[in-house]
Amino acid sequence: MLTYSFEEKGKESLYEFLYKKIREDILSFRLSPDEKLPSKRALAKNLSVSTITVENAYSQLMAEGYIYSVPKSGFYVSHITSKAGARRSDAVPAEQPQTNDTAELFADFTGNSVPAGSFPFVTWTKLMRETMSDSPEKLMANSPSQGIYELRSAIADYLFQFRGMDVSPEQIIIGAGTEYLYGLIIQLLGRSKAYAVEEPGYQKISKIYRSNDVECVHIPLDGNGIDISALDSSPADVVHISPSHHFPTGIVTPISRRYELLSWASKSVGRYIIEDDYDSEFRLLGKPVPSLQSIDVLEKVIYINTFSKSLTSTIRISYMVLPKSLIKLYKNKLSFYSCTVPNFEQYTLAKFIERGFFEKHINRMRNYYRSRRDCVMKCIAAQPDFSKVKITEENSGLHFLLTINTSLSDEELTEKAREKGVKISCLSEYCYDRKNAQPHTLIINYSGLPTEKTERAIGLLFSCF
Amino acid sequence: MLTYSFEEKGKESLYEFLYKKIREDILSFRLSPDEKLPSKRALAKNLSVSTITVENAYSQLMAEGYIYSVPKSGFYVSHITSKAGARRSDAVPAEQPQTNDTAELFADFTGNSVPAGSFPFVTWTKLMRETMSDSPEKLMANSPSQGIYELRSAIADYLFQFRGMDVSPEQIIIGAGTEYLYGLIIQLLGRSKAYAVEEPGYQKISKIYRSNDVECVHIPLDGNGIDISALDSSPADVVHISPSHHFPTGIVTPISRRYELLSWASKSVGRYIIEDDYDSEFRLLGKPVPSLQSIDVLEKVIYINTFSKSLTSTIRISYMVLPKSLIKLYKNKLSFYSCTVPNFEQYTLAKFIERGFFEKHINRMRNYYRSRRDCVMKCIAAQPDFSKVKITEENSGLHFLLTINTSLSDEELTEKAREKGVKISCLSEYCYDRKNAQPHTLIINYSGLPTEKTERAIGLLFSCF
Repeated sequence: MLTYSFEEKGKESLYEFLYKKIREDILSFRLSPDEKLPSKRALAKNLSVSTITVENAYSQLMAEGYIYSVPKSGFYVSHITSKAGARRSDAVPAEQPQTNDTAELFADFTGNSVPAGSFPFVTWTKLMRETMSDSPEKLMANSPSQGIYELRSAIADYLFQFRGMDVSPEQIIIGAGTEYLYGLIIQLLGRSKAYAVEEPGYQKISKIYRSNDVECVHIPLDGNGIDISALDSSPADVVHISPSHHFPTGIVTPISRRYELLSWASKSVGRYIIEDDYDSEFRLLGKPVPSLQSIDVLEKVIYINTFSKSLTSTIRISYMVLPKSLIKLYKNKLSFYSCTVPNFEQYTLAKFIERGFFEKHINRMRNYYRSRRDCVMKCIAAQPDFSKVKITEENSGLHFLLTINTSLSDEELTEKAREKGVKISCLSEYCYDRKNAQPHTLIINYSGLPTEKTERAIGLLFSCF
Repeated sequence: MLTYSFEEKGKESLYEFLYKKIREDILSFRLSPDEKLPSKRALAKNLSVSTITVENAYSQLMAEGYIYSVPKSGFYVSHITSKAGARRSDAVPAEQPQTNDTAELFADFTGNSVPAGSFPFVTWTKLMRETMSDSPEKLMANSPSQGIYELRSAIADYLFQFRGMDVSPEQIIIGAGTEYLYGLIIQLLGRSKAYAVEEPGYQKISKIYRSNDVECVHIPLDGNGIDISALDSSPADVVHISPSHHFPTGIVTPISRRYELLSWASKSVGRYIIEDDYDSEFRLLGKPVPSLQSIDVLEKVIYINTFSKSLTSTIRISYMVLPKSLIKLYKNKLSFYSCTVPNFEQYTLAKFIERGFFEKHINRMRNYYRSRRDCVMKCIAAQPDFSKVKITEENSGLHFLLTINTSLSDEELTEKAREKGVKISCLSEYCYDRKNAQPHTLIINYSGLPTEKTERAIGLLFSCF
């Protein structure tokens, strides 16, 4: 039986170390061609590691051609003078199956992710099972380019009931993530247009525009959202904004500014507004502000939302609502594209929304986030240095800003926190031009931070300044 | 209880007729605002239609704001003078939940689709259930941009064993359909390059290039695939081909031409070949020709394949294999994109491949398609007018060409067949410039045609000329 000492392992992961050891033995012919390797289970037991570790090592060896598998028999050493042994792909830097980048972190305030346990797993899998028992013919029929009608209809109903939006399923386009939909919008509106994004803002959006080679201008914000006069004097034809809850500042654009935006759009035929409503469901206090889409009578607003934020980022379902005039354009120009979301997911999500589970989930999450926020706030207020900080926009969404009275630079702050095991991000990181950023301002994402870690995490954070 | 006579229904579907009847009653106030509608089940029973019909009608009425639902109570008539009644979305032309475009057709030779019943539904759902019972933490962790490692590893093994391709999981990128991957390739290689496609060819590919505003040139074929001298004298930097089995001509590019292609690519740093291997699994006779990727030592080939063809088009999973130099570029330029395929599907497909189900499925389908082809060929050979036709390239893939000795134009042929209930497509439809097309040549896709319909369908087809 193969036996290796893990003492010399160093910083490598167990699987990586094991993979290298076996590879060494194959290359040095200590293991002969066609020699049978121990079963995963037996080797795991012998080395006192988990079967997964052995499985990962064997997978890597197999992917690189050092070993091969014979169904119902096991794993064997390849003839390494043959093609398999000299696989070109060896030269590719190996990638670890699981990255452990954040393993040594105590707390991560940058993760805007949905907490793993919050996904309504039981309900979802129940509905998935139900979907699976639907007729295979229905499940196996091609989805229309815009997505399965049932799902679009469920979304239209949801938007009507909970967002006061009056849209028909015919206006909705389902896609595998908002990033994919941005790409479609560029193809729809045209690459000759200039697209304006918010500064500061979610940098991925401008990355996508630049990656698609369209002109992208960065427009500053004032207290009410994107600065209209700056927008007016820019070459922008299309403005991409998140008026319900700007990331990362948390600004909610008031109704007066919304009308100014619609008025800006009305001044030229080719102007459009992309309303990115990514987390409007999670507004914690007060009535939600009506969406721009719902007060747009000139067909200027493309509304985008996603279930990646509200359900889980591992389900890639987003949608956009096009104004009528653009649906015709979409049908002419882009309906040759296949829908990018599998039918299984589309039917399951349709059921999930129709039967009220989505609403229940949102309510539950809103309560959860509210209690998370209250807990974070309480911990901050209890800090001796509480007077040194200022909190902005804590009533909506899953994050707020914390401005610190300190002489440390943003880089020094981030580095100091990192040393203490706390990952933070500063407002400056969300600026295309860092000179524009208000300094010493942290973005505190509390959605992923477990309750039991909060007190210590906040304490560690405050110990940095 | 609402009662309608379905006698005046005409050509509309039941649900559509019912929807219009109820809408009429709401608009004419025969049904009053806030009046409760009968339950779906009760109405279905009263009208002797299925509950689904009533459900579809109610969904449409709800989506358009004519009725509203009260959870745990039922459906009620909206106040139609209010916003809901006058929903702007009314003006959007209604779309039918199910399109019945091909309902009156007897046979469709254009459908290149996988037959609905062929998907290994039981195995797939079993594996999906297994995936669901995996740890929620694993399922809910974000997929790397390139896709879940397990799936990429399974694909690498599969390519090694069945396609003789030596690739590492690090070179693989998973995406929601090849159309999405084409978009990524354009962003990766750059929009300043000129892309060459095959003429004739799959027109969607050039549509995608044009929709992304890149220069797209159409290169004619000779008997061995794309014409190298035409390619050489074109401005193309990148050539997009399907050498294993060209669609629609069925040409298999021989090894000599493959080396010419690689040689063409070697002449300039910026040249690349996109090898679209969409149906190589289904070669019916003889050994598969090695992929271009497997004989490419200069890192010039981007290999693309999809599970939409080999499994079902409703699962949106495709992948590409990048040469090493391009992986680095991908990581720098495009790894900010989220993977577009849900984790559920990725883990399930990984299991499906790893455990040999994919291979079994391919073998089963190959046998099925072979028997389908034999049956179609037998029916053709039995036609009295057999001497008037010529069959080309019947040994690979799911379709062949049928050239007819006729004086009818392609349009007349298509129209005549349509009148007889048979949908056909001509080679000319796959040409960007129809002048280039060999006339009177039909593409016979037999993959979707049921055995019991074959004889009659071929008879109807031959009765056209």
